[in-house]
Amino acid sequence: MAENTDKWICRELISMLKKYGVNVIVASPGSRNAPLLVAAARENAIEVIPVADERSAAFIALGYAAVSDAPVAIICTSGTAVLNYGPAVAEAFYRALPLIVISADRPYEWIDQDDSQTIRQPGTFANFTKGSYDLNESVTDADKWYANRMINDAMTLALSGRKGPVHINVRLDCPLGRQSDSRHPQPRKIATLRPREDLTVGDARVYGRQLASPRKVMIIAGFMTPDSRLNQALGRLARLPNFVVMTETIANMHNPAFISRIDTTLSQMTDDDRHTLKPDVVITLGGALVSRHIKDYIRSIDNAEHWSVGHTHTTVDCFRHLSLRIEMRPEVFFPQLASAMQPHQASCDYSRRWELLARKAEATHQAYVGSAPWSDMRAFSVFMPMIPRNANLQLSNGTAVRYAQLFATRDYHRCDCNRGVSGIDGCTSTAIGAAMAYPGITVLVTGDMSAQYDVGALAYASLAPRLRIIVMRNGGGAIFRFVESTCYLDELEKYFAHPRQFPARQIAEAYGLDYFEAADEQSLRGVFRQFLSAPRAALLAVDTPAEESARILRNYFNRKSEYINHKQTDI
Amino acid sequence: MAENTDKWICRELISMLKKYGVNVIVASPGSRNAPLLVAAARENAIEVIPVADERSAAFIALGYAAVSDAPVAIICTSGTAVLNYGPAVAEAFYRALPLIVISADRPYEWIDQDDSQTIRQPGTFANFTKGSYDLNESVTDADKWYANRMINDAMTLALSGRKGPVHINVRLDCPLGRQSDSRHPQPRKIATLRPREDLTVGDARVYGRQLASPRKVMIIAGFMTPDSRLNQALGRLARLPNFVVMTETIANMHNPAFISRIDTTLSQMTDDDRHTLKPDVVITLGGALVSRHIKDYIRSIDNAEHWSVGHTHTTVDCFRHLSLRIEMRPEVFFPQLASAMQPHQASCDYSRRWELLARKAEATHQAYVGSAPWSDMRAFSVFMPMIPRNANLQLSNGTAVRYAQLFATRDYHRCDCNRGVSGIDGCTSTAIGAAMAYPGITVLVTGDMSAQYDVGALAYASLAPRLRIIVMRNGGGAIFRFVESTCYLDELEKYFAHPRQFPARQIAEAYGLDYFEAADEQSLRGVFRQFLSAPRAALLAVDTPAEESARILRNYFNRKSEYINHKQTDI
Repeated sequence: MAENTDKWICRELISMLKKYGVNVIVASPGSRNAPLLVAAARENAIEVIPVADERSAAFIALGYAAVSDAPVAIICTSGTAVLNYGPAVAEAFYRALPLIVISADRPYEWIDQDDSQTIRQPGTFANFTKGSYDLNESVTDADKWYANRMINDAMTLALSGRKGPVHINVRLDCPLGRQSDSRHPQPRKIATLRPREDLTVGDARVYGRQLASPRKVMIIAGFMTPDSRLNQALGRLARLPNFVVMTETIANMHNPAFISRIDTTLSQMTDDDRHTLKPDVVITLGGALVSRHIKDYIRSIDNAEHWSVGHTHTTVDCFRHLSLRIEMRPEVFFPQLASAMQPHQASCDYSRRWELLARKAEATHQAYVGSAPWSDMRAFSVFMPMIPRNANLQLSNGTAVRYAQLFATRDYHRCDCNRGVSGIDGCTSTAIGAAMAYPGITVLVTGDMSAQYDVGALAYASLAPRLRIIVMRNGGGAIFRFVESTCYLDELEKYFAHPRQFPARQIAEAYGLDYFEAADEQSLRGVFRQFLSAPRAALLAVDTPAEESARILRNYFNRKSEYINHKQTDI
Repeated sequence: MAENTDKWICRELISMLKKYGVNVIVASPGSRNAPLLVAAARENAIEVIPVADERSAAFIALGYAAVSDAPVAIICTSGTAVLNYGPAVAEAFYRALPLIVISADRPYEWIDQDDSQTIRQPGTFANFTKGSYDLNESVTDADKWYANRMINDAMTLALSGRKGPVHINVRLDCPLGRQSDSRHPQPRKIATLRPREDLTVGDARVYGRQLASPRKVMIIAGFMTPDSRLNQALGRLARLPNFVVMTETIANMHNPAFISRIDTTLSQMTDDDRHTLKPDVVITLGGALVSRHIKDYIRSIDNAEHWSVGHTHTTVDCFRHLSLRIEMRPEVFFPQLASAMQPHQASCDYSRRWELLARKAEATHQAYVGSAPWSDMRAFSVFMPMIPRNANLQLSNGTAVRYAQLFATRDYHRCDCNRGVSGIDGCTSTAIGAAMAYPGITVLVTGDMSAQYDVGALAYASLAPRLRIIVMRNGGGAIFRFVESTCYLDELEKYFAHPRQFPARQIAEAYGLDYFEAADEQSLRGVFRQFLSAPRAALLAVDTPAEESARILRNYFNRKSEYINHKQTDI
């Protein structure tokens, strides 16, 4: 395949992607971007995944990037195609994923000249990319020098510090140009050497002392990629009597000593508990928290200190108590902190008290769920323990991820959710991308509103045979039946809940997925293993009653902790 | 329904929408925007259409706005929801449609604080709205004065001069707040009196003289809303011997004297014709042209003058010959021009020559199409004459609109296509919106790639029973098989054409449309009347051979006019 596009910039860009570790490009067809696609197709070391709908394409790339922990590029043509990337680019920005956004464009002089598929593209993603670059065909040496430098800049920026998306807009004169059989010289990748990121021994001791007993320390882990070194360090800290480590389902941190079901545990707090379990210092790591309960609780504590660990663009003061930004990767900071802590400290029952509360909450949870009639809650209680070992659990916004928080996942699961911005728009696409990158089974649990929203994603012709999709058909928009801001509205059913049952069977048939359904506990148990062992991608529709499910979830939280009621829960 | 949200800004905004002529709001559910939806639902004079997918919702609103010739509002929640509006907002901008984009947001202080569904929203649409406004809950009198003024500004801007979208971002503190039964006082709408827009008699004469015979004048009409006064004026001009009036299918201008099949006619030009039919002055009106042939032809004429009629933001110099911008609405300018022209001028055969060419082209067209085997071309030749009277013909990008240009539509048809940016992304949604506003039958003709792209739109529960969708199943991405930039690529089938047949039957069943299909001329003729008279929305899949259809279309243009071949056609 010596023949390639004769457009230097396209060959250069694709070669550079490869040099920076891009192995996958999700490409949407178009005319203006055809030379980019040709260059991509002829780079043997890069897999090109064709997806027509750019919105879906970008989320597929995002899912792939998250699971593979590598940069993934997306390439589209000019015009509104680019704008369809918006939702996934924003999600990548807030989730710190290196999505390399490449859009074909026309030369400047053709913008706003009533030619088709032409808009003002530069700046489109300025609010949610780390950087934007505008390149032309690069005919002169000066152009080529500039373009190579800008691509180096873009890739370095995407992959350094807090990772994130960058936008490279490529202005091409006529759509394809000719083919040529000239070989492209190896492009210049400019390497970067960065200093080691660590604490001095002195600093580690100083900060360690500030966390010594009798001070009460709460670590809260939001969404993250699995990391065994970090997991181990948090495990060591969790053994200290004055530490409690709270982990959300999508934090992917596991240890029997962690409180991994935050909402369940907090729902059991008495007013007395709320007082005695107050931390003096809260240390957060990972992304935005799913649990409103923990956010509301920490916000309500007047004199708590908050230390935030990780690279952030801005001051993220999510509890309004932030006192220290620790601009280091958690997997570097926490091992150093754990080593600096004295293992034997003054006696303190802080950790123990949380453990007792968690156990009580677990017992109440079991009793409540055990007696709950068929509902979303009951369905989750059935299938969550049946999620196979080494599965990637993909959770949609908004109810699926909230239910999953109430059930234990295990250290042999990996859990993900689009919690960067928490949109419902690309959950299915994200799972499709994840399933391509993930070696085991990927199980997406999604609501019917999310599933309908992103239904076009299923048209992707090469769905991984290991993909499993569970659609909770609970009348659509279950979150609106649950949250107080909408559940009492006269307009609920008409304007918020989805008016039509998601046509799971027909959709499965349309796009070649195996289809299963369950409308009660027995059928769910009966069908689940078959569903898991299907030879190709499969879809399981779980029908639950809408009102009843919402009521059971509301009551789960209302049992003890009245304070939750006073807050307006947001989705 | 005296009870309403207690949020003043939501009641004020909705009341103002009504005062400015908004009768329809397409609303996507969310928590942050719930008070806006409550206020909308309780404004009895406004119809609220709930559509979950914001991308589709915005295109539905756009289709409705285009056909109803009135402003339509869209309301969504915060986060990536907003970004899904991008494609339709850009299309509205380049199509000059007054889409009122309303997004709920959080207060400034909560941006980038790791709360869910929160991004940096202001400025999102800066590149393709006429204005952006950022409002808060408006508690103080000063706030309320400001908000009322900004809403007046936004609506006036959207509806004046060249119409277009505006973005109103509303920062709401907690999602719902309370209900209250207070009545909202009538908000203040600030009226605008503008001077009459017309030419002085003197100017009309001056410019009329510049167009007198023997100067050869070509008027080219791009996409427009039907307008009888303008149609009549163009008809008068077309009778002048030195004028030729070219109208694209979606210009919605009809007169036997017009050349309404531009591509067909131009495909018959000899090199001699290209010389003798050269205009001295080209006058354009309406939006971006579909026909590359006419653009290439006019661009190739070195000394042509180009006058552009209509309000534009920028200098739109689409032929590179622009010499005069006439910043007036065409329906005002052309009647004045027609009156200023002397009916009896020096003899000139310019008009006559075009008429002869058009007749020759028509004969060749008939012969070619009549002998063509079953293909896209043949299918269009069968169903285009069967489109019923008073139908609204909605055409998708990219092949459907190009085929439709080759067949005559009649003055009792209205034709629309998203040619502002020419995206394939929202064609189905746009037709769904149009069908709601259009009193007669709406027939969407779409390709399988476009249909698949926007398949989620069909989930809208209240599809107008008068909606008819024809999906040309020709192997997907037919345009890529036709245009030279991609048709010879090795990668064509893998990366450009759509790899899977659009599952029309299953999709129709999934979303409750009546289903029909045709795979040859006889079955198409047989099924078409049934399809039209179905009691509810219906979908007709027309299967044509992919390669054969592309070949027949290419040959249609290759018959005579070699010059077309030299250009790289863009989609």
